[in-house]
Amino acid sequence: MLKYELGCELTYSIEQASTLILNVAIVSNNHQIIVQEDLHSNSQRSIEEYITSVSGNRYFRLNAPPGNLQISYRATVGLSPYYSDPSTIFEVKPADLPLDILYYLYPSRYCQSDRLLRFVAAEFGHLVPGYSRVTAICNWIYDNVLYLSGSSDSLTSACDTAIERVGVCRDFAHLGIAFCRALNIPARFVAGYAYGLNPPDFHAWFEAYLGGRWYLFDPTRLVPQSGLIRVGTGRDAADVSFATIFGPVQMNQMRLFMDYLPDAKPISENILIPTTEAIAIS
Amino acid sequence: MLKYELGCELTYSIEQASTLILNVAIVSNNHQIIVQEDLHSNSQRSIEEYITSVSGNRYFRLNAPPGNLQISYRATVGLSPYYSDPSTIFEVKPADLPLDILYYLYPSRYCQSDRLLRFVAAEFGHLVPGYSRVTAICNWIYDNVLYLSGSSDSLTSACDTAIERVGVCRDFAHLGIAFCRALNIPARFVAGYAYGLNPPDFHAWFEAYLGGRWYLFDPTRLVPQSGLIRVGTGRDAADVSFATIFGPVQMNQMRLFMDYLPDAKPISENILIPTTEAIAIS
Amino acid sequence: MLKYELGCELTYSIEQASTLILNVAIVSNNHQIIVQEDLHSNSQRSIEEYITSVSGNRYFRLNAPPGNLQISYRATVGLSPYYSDPSTIFEVKPADLPLDILYYLYPSRYCQSDRLLRFVAAEFGHLVPGYSRVTAICNWIYDNVLYLSGSSDSLTSACDTAIERVGVCRDFAHLGIAFCRALNIPARFVAGYAYGLNPPDFHAWFEAYLGGRWYLFDPTRLVPQSGLIRVGTGRDAADVSFATIFGPVQMNQMRLFMDYLPDAKPISENILIPTTEAIAIS
Amino acid sequence: MLKYELGCELTYSIEQASTLILNVAIVSNNHQIIVQEDLHSNSQRSIEEYITSVSGNRYFRLNAPPGNLQISYRATVGLSPYYSDPSTIFEVKPADLPLDILYYLYPSRYCQSDRLLRFVAAEFGHLVPGYSRVTAICNWIYDNVLYLSGSSDSLTSACDTAIERVGVCRDFAHLGIAFCRALNIPARFVAGYAYGLNPPDFHAWFEAYLGGRWYLFDPTRLVPQSGLIRVGTGRDAADVSFATIFGPVQMNQMRLFMDYLPDAKPISENILIPTTEAIAIS
Repeated sequence: MLKYELGCELTYSIEQASTLILNVAIVSNNHQIIVQEDLHSNSQRSIEEYITSVSGNRYFRLNAPPGNLQISYRATVGLSPYYSDPSTIFEVKPADLPLDILYYLYPSRYCQSDRLLRFVAAEFGHLVPGYSRVTAICNWIYDNVLYLSGSSDSLTSACDTAIERVGVCRDFAHLGIAFCRALNIPARFVAGYAYGLNPPDFHAWFEAYLGGRWYLFDPTRLVPQSGLIRVGTGRDAADVSFATIFGPVQMNQMRLFMDYLPDAKPISENILIPTTEAIAIS
Repeated sequence: MLKYELGCELTYSIEQASTLILNVAIVSNNHQIIVQEDLHSNSQRSIEEYITSVSGNRYFRLNAPPGNLQISYRATVGLSPYYSDPSTIFEVKPADLPLDILYYLYPSRYCQSDRLLRFVAAEFGHLVPGYSRVTAICNWIYDNVLYLSGSSDSLTSACDTAIERVGVCRDFAHLGIAFCRALNIPARFVAGYAYGLNPPDFHAWFEAYLGGRWYLFDPTRLVPQSGLIRVGTGRDAADVSFATIFGPVQMNQMRLFMDYLPDAKPISENILIPTTEAIAIS
Repeated sequence: MLKYELGCELTYSIEQASTLILNVAIVSNNHQIIVQEDLHSNSQRSIEEYITSVSGNRYFRLNAPPGNLQISYRATVGLSPYYSDPSTIFEVKPADLPLDILYYLYPSRYCQSDRLLRFVAAEFGHLVPGYSRVTAICNWIYDNVLYLSGSSDSLTSACDTAIERVGVCRDFAHLGIAFCRALNIPARFVAGYAYGLNPPDFHAWFEAYLGGRWYLFDPTRLVPQSGLIRVGTGRDAADVSFATIFGPVQMNQMRLFMDYLPDAKPISENILIPTTEAIAIS
Repeated sequence: MLKYELGCELTYSIEQASTLILNVAIVSNNHQIIVQEDLHSNSQRSIEEYITSVSGNRYFRLNAPPGNLQISYRATVGLSPYYSDPSTIFEVKPADLPLDILYYLYPSRYCQSDRLLRFVAAEFGHLVPGYSRVTAICNWIYDNVLYLSGSSDSLTSACDTAIERVGVCRDFAHLGIAFCRALNIPARFVAGYAYGLNPPDFHAWFEAYLGGRWYLFDPTRLVPQSGLIRVGTGRDAADVSFATIFGPVQMNQMRLFMDYLPDAKPISENILIPTTEAIAIS
């Protein structure tokens, strides 16, 4: 088990009474255990927590009065990824696909896989199905799309990125998802904390449903895969906003941190050496 | 209770062994009772049924061998809409919104509400919140968008329709959904059977979450609201395809029918006279 | 010199008095000589002709009264293409580019080269500049885009085609133009008659400015290059509509024909054997 | 005659030998007389000037060696607008339109009038044709689109602005142009210097062809119309870039200035009081 300490501090100016729905807390599941957790706000108001049944996403709702709002979240998490030999991981045939993940085959706001069918068939259609084909998709994205801070915005979609060939982590993930879905591989968006990201920020990657599991893929290659801690899961970034705000609210500051806790295993063996194994944490 | 008999016949040419996932069967819920139902196929293969927990959508999966495939579905349904006085139906504040419907506020493939915030604020922002505001949205769509068969395709989105001002039922619904979400009113897409639609076809409308319920709205004004029977519910048409096909399959024919069964109540009182009441069937 | 006889017949229903601007007559220049020409209309009204100074496009303006309008155009044309050895044709440096063709470097309605800079740099940036690089662009289009009648419409642009990888001749030309401009190679759209096109229709191809000339390229490979007769030249299809109509007019029929006149040279030597030489007809 | 002194200073870092084509010098025509003019560069290289026949745009081409490049342009200009009574200015019928301005009816990169036909017919189709209808278009833009610095980029088009309802001067002009063309009113883009713009920057507006002239319109209402001095004219911003750069060049600084020279007439009578008359400067 790998252990991390992580968190964020958010400060907002609330002009008039507003509602904020935050999705900054990490998910608890078989692979990701919350050892300790603390949510603190300078507001007297209670914070409502809601956990979605489908994705396990945790939403905090605050009804904030006018003034300054500070929220800090901090958690210690244990991560036990599931490792598997990539060569053994096959694509699931439509005939065998669990129907509750059918939605992850359909196009979504930022992942218009329906427009990319011929593109994807030409680029990846001839490849051997399986984990290696999704790896080929990630390699294509890494080779063909420039990672450039500030090059995209909240309207940028996979089709834009396929044309303009520039973006940030969320665009890389969207393109990976759109490509997978166009090949009938279910794929979904994940947002979370990433160990070693510089400057610290929320990160985004994607998961593809292969061999009966959601395997993680990060075409940005910015951080080691075993340094990814899940916050939000959804069909694309539209579902996984770290803050949904209703009212005249200004964000003043957002600070994230993530530290490795070396008591478990020496970091060199786990984190810094990129693995060639497939990893699933869901 | 209103009673209808309805159904469809689909015939396909299967070139190679293929998987079809059909979403043509009607949903069962408090307002919509399946009195009798029959699904028939000319294939020996079993048909797997899956009902989604979130929406109650019913998917039939068939693994079809090469050859001719015929599917016929037929149901007798009793509809007991919930009627309510529109003037009493308010918008739900973000502070009170059940968090499991938060997803219906987010933009989706065909309903890019995130791009329409200023448009919608200018057109509808000043109106009194409530059922009447969504009615105003529907009136705007009816007045400003031409209904024209064949004018749009599977790539057409709400932004296209807002610009080009032409479309079919699904485009009308998408635009209504996008407008609602841009006003922080949760909205979702519904596909189903519609009494009196000429020529008979699957119809699409939308629902807005108001006063704690999903009220139905149909900006096409093509059919009476009490003649709408639900098949699929989703964030937009991407979620509610009547057929998702994996493999080289050709659709040869699609025939729908829907008849009113007058044993319950005389039709004149219920169907042909448009109601001024708000209707919910979910 | 190659000789062709060609023409078109157009019939319209004019509901109310309307203005039509037709661009169906062939251009006269050093390489394309009009031997004989006839324009006939069933209307008593005179037809105004206008020839643009920039492109030599010929516009016929008719002010048609209500009723049936028939227009027939017929011409005998002699074509003397300029042939050149592709290996000797270089790209013109921006420092040497005649500034009156600067406009053909800029993005246009259907050729958004500004969005494709990185795409094009990655695909073609490393190739040796010159005629062969534009040939590589054409080969890419031929290999990666499916020619499919009816797959696009008047709104389809090069960016759509780059994503969706399907289109008709005008889409192939638009993509070629956009790719060239993104490499700083001036490129323009040409519409005209094409020998051997089946079914007969107006065709579209493009020209790239190389080595001080406009060389022609047709990524569809549908017809021999020496069978292309110019009607309209422009920045893209927006400039080169064969009919611009003001008023309630219905087109009933459009028939084209194009025959080879074998008195000049035997066709086998000129037309049916694709040339490996570069061809310019402007 | 109004007199202004204006100019700009541009500084670039040239990494490798590059070509720059600048369009910063003002046009000379019947209404806009260059009293004095000076172009200065710190480069030893000669600057080539090219004036386009269609628009009178003046292009300066520099082939710059690596290093720091400074360019300063300064002019004294006399402006004699043509004033006309708006109520006498009619739209030109397609039957009477000079065919050399037909191109300004066609859609262009940023002005996709072809997508806006129904939108425009619904909003403006019922209005009395003439100058006042274009004024209505400008009023609509002013009322419905928020002017917000930094809200758009070089990819933003009229369709984006029609949806998102936010933009800067070039977006306002593009939308005005697209609306006009969709009503069969020729319209074109103008870039230039604007008196009183704060902070000083290049400005953009548009011209509509009415009553046989190009009348100017500026839906931003940021500056008095008699304070607009023309630099570039084109179909949209794609044609009128103040700098087209070939090579690895960084712009370090751009400073503009524009002063009123009060020797001609007191400014209060001419500039600061917005006129109700129609103005043409072309």
